[in-house]
Amino acid sequence: MSAVVPPPAPAVRAQAAERLAGLATPAGALGRLGDLGVWLSAAQGVCPPAPLDQVRLVIFAGDHGVARHGVSAYPPAITPAMVRTFVLGKAGVSALAAAHGVHVRVLDLGVDDDLDGVPADVTAHKVRRGSGAIHVEDALSADEAARAYDAGRTVAREEIAAGAQLLLSGDMGIGNTTPAAALVAAALGLPAAEVTGRGTGVDDAALAHKQALVQQALDRAGDRVADPLDALAALGSADLVATTGYLVQAAEGGVPVLLDGLMSVACALYAERIAPGAAAWFAAGHRSTEPAQALALEKLGLEPALDLGLRLGEGSGAVAAVPVLRSAVALLRDVALLADLMPPAPEQP
Amino acid sequence: MSAVVPPPAPAVRAQAAERLAGLATPAGALGRLGDLGVWLSAAQGVCPPAPLDQVRLVIFAGDHGVARHGVSAYPPAITPAMVRTFVLGKAGVSALAAAHGVHVRVLDLGVDDDLDGVPADVTAHKVRRGSGAIHVEDALSADEAARAYDAGRTVAREEIAAGAQLLLSGDMGIGNTTPAAALVAAALGLPAAEVTGRGTGVDDAALAHKQALVQQALDRAGDRVADPLDALAALGSADLVATTGYLVQAAEGGVPVLLDGLMSVACALYAERIAPGAAAWFAAGHRSTEPAQALALEKLGLEPALDLGLRLGEGSGAVAAVPVLRSAVALLRDVALLADLMPPAPEQP
Repeated sequence: MSAVVPPPAPAVRAQAAERLAGLATPAGALGRLGDLGVWLSAAQGVCPPAPLDQVRLVIFAGDHGVARHGVSAYPPAITPAMVRTFVLGKAGVSALAAAHGVHVRVLDLGVDDDLDGVPADVTAHKVRRGSGAIHVEDALSADEAARAYDAGRTVAREEIAAGAQLLLSGDMGIGNTTPAAALVAAALGLPAAEVTGRGTGVDDAALAHKQALVQQALDRAGDRVADPLDALAALGSADLVATTGYLVQAAEGGVPVLLDGLMSVACALYAERIAPGAAAWFAAGHRSTEPAQALALEKLGLEPALDLGLRLGEGSGAVAAVPVLRSAVALLRDVALLADLMPPAPEQP
Repeated sequence: MSAVVPPPAPAVRAQAAERLAGLATPAGALGRLGDLGVWLSAAQGVCPPAPLDQVRLVIFAGDHGVARHGVSAYPPAITPAMVRTFVLGKAGVSALAAAHGVHVRVLDLGVDDDLDGVPADVTAHKVRRGSGAIHVEDALSADEAARAYDAGRTVAREEIAAGAQLLLSGDMGIGNTTPAAALVAAALGLPAAEVTGRGTGVDDAALAHKQALVQQALDRAGDRVADPLDALAALGSADLVATTGYLVQAAEGGVPVLLDGLMSVACALYAERIAPGAAAWFAAGHRSTEPAQALALEKLGLEPALDLGLRLGEGSGAVAAVPVLRSAVALLRDVALLADLMPPAPEQP
């Protein structure tokens, strides 16, 4: 368990809010871009905020035992194939990241494949081949969970050392919406029926089955979900536990995070449980079609920047939202101050 | 009246839709970015679409006689001050355009100021100083309206000649939501109560007054609104008529347009009335807080890419949405095809 995380610099936040109010624009006319600019300024500790030149995404990949039990429209063999596609730079998120100048790193935490021929740094943090099928067994042992969590923290430290001004998290793993939904349900005390969605697109029958397995997992885990690390080991997966460690470390390291879809936001919920105050360092990139993401965002008090119907995963929603944050920075940095355009009349003697 | 505008290349649209379906992503996972990529591909006449390197915004500026009658939270003197701020590159839209690589051109069509010292090309298309107060008189004479419309067409031709792959329209003019709301009401046959919003932020009393003036303008114009050019002259303004000509010319010239807020979308409604089919060349950038924009968008069958609570005008919503279109292009261009990643098994002899 970590200590309470201090919020982005309150004094700089106040300074940025004052600058926003002084811009030569109608009051409130910048909408959410004004709010995001103030947040980024506080998170950077400088007003006006600096341009976001160093934006770095880490995609945590892993397989889920439950994916072999009819919860996904796609077979688990897709997971290693997609890891290879990220390495080649030919996935959806690769295209978006190239378009928007975002650095991408992919890490295999628990892919059920040896990934022969893939660069060694991709598999350097691998915890195991495939996480346990959560409806019948824990996803990870306590030791595996600790290793995955530490791997996420280490990776965040490395990304910060590489100069990250903004960190993004993405996830790849067929079946990943099942553990993510279970984690959200456990954190919010909700039944499976309220959190389970269609993922990459299962039909009605498979949705009902998926919901039953999520409930079975919740029932199996029982009271252990009261502890966030126990809940992650029981209901999560190596990639999701690593993502949680990454998010905690980003907040503790004072680097803002732009969250992605359900997996990223579910882990943000656990980061906040583990390190209260961490969520003040997070913004939401894209609204997911998964109901559990909306529930988790509401709990975190976050509103996504984009709602484009993306359900690609991989961190794609966060990458697509990076230009929104760049817009926010540009407005707070580069718009004239009213006081500069129209100096106040000199005081009368 | 223009002839019917042919749609973006149907054969290329089909080719792009086929490419989208063949990408190595789950079916439908790209959401609106998939649709926008297909649209841009068809509009460019090439599949996959080319990167949007040449994006050009024209801001049409003008004053509105009705602004002197209590419909705005700001005085008309702000209009020339903002034109000067655009020229200096220090306005909100300037900051966004610099961040996203969008070329900005500002044109004075009807600012109620001589704009001494501003570059001559800014005022080269000026029709008059201030358009008429629409609740008591026509905004423009028929001749002035024709000149403004032709100016907009000329400007679009110039921007296309300069290499524009995507055109944006913006508007600047204190009071501009009043004629724009009246134009939407006239086009859709709605009363003032349904179209009138708070603009840059009037209070309840001013909103009621604004609504009464919009209704007075509609009643005054009467049946003349059946003809779109007559409606524009009676209820619009020099900047709005020029914007309409610009949009018609863009569509006729085969260049896609990303619309901005209420003014831009109101003019798009008239572009479609004047040149049926033009709207197929338009996408919507940002949802306005003005009710008339939502009504006009619905009529045009368009859904905005962004909804960030911006109400800055100036084309800012369109500029902020440019990266969404770039995301769409990147996905359709650069993501691997499933057939390339996993070649089909050879046929058995």
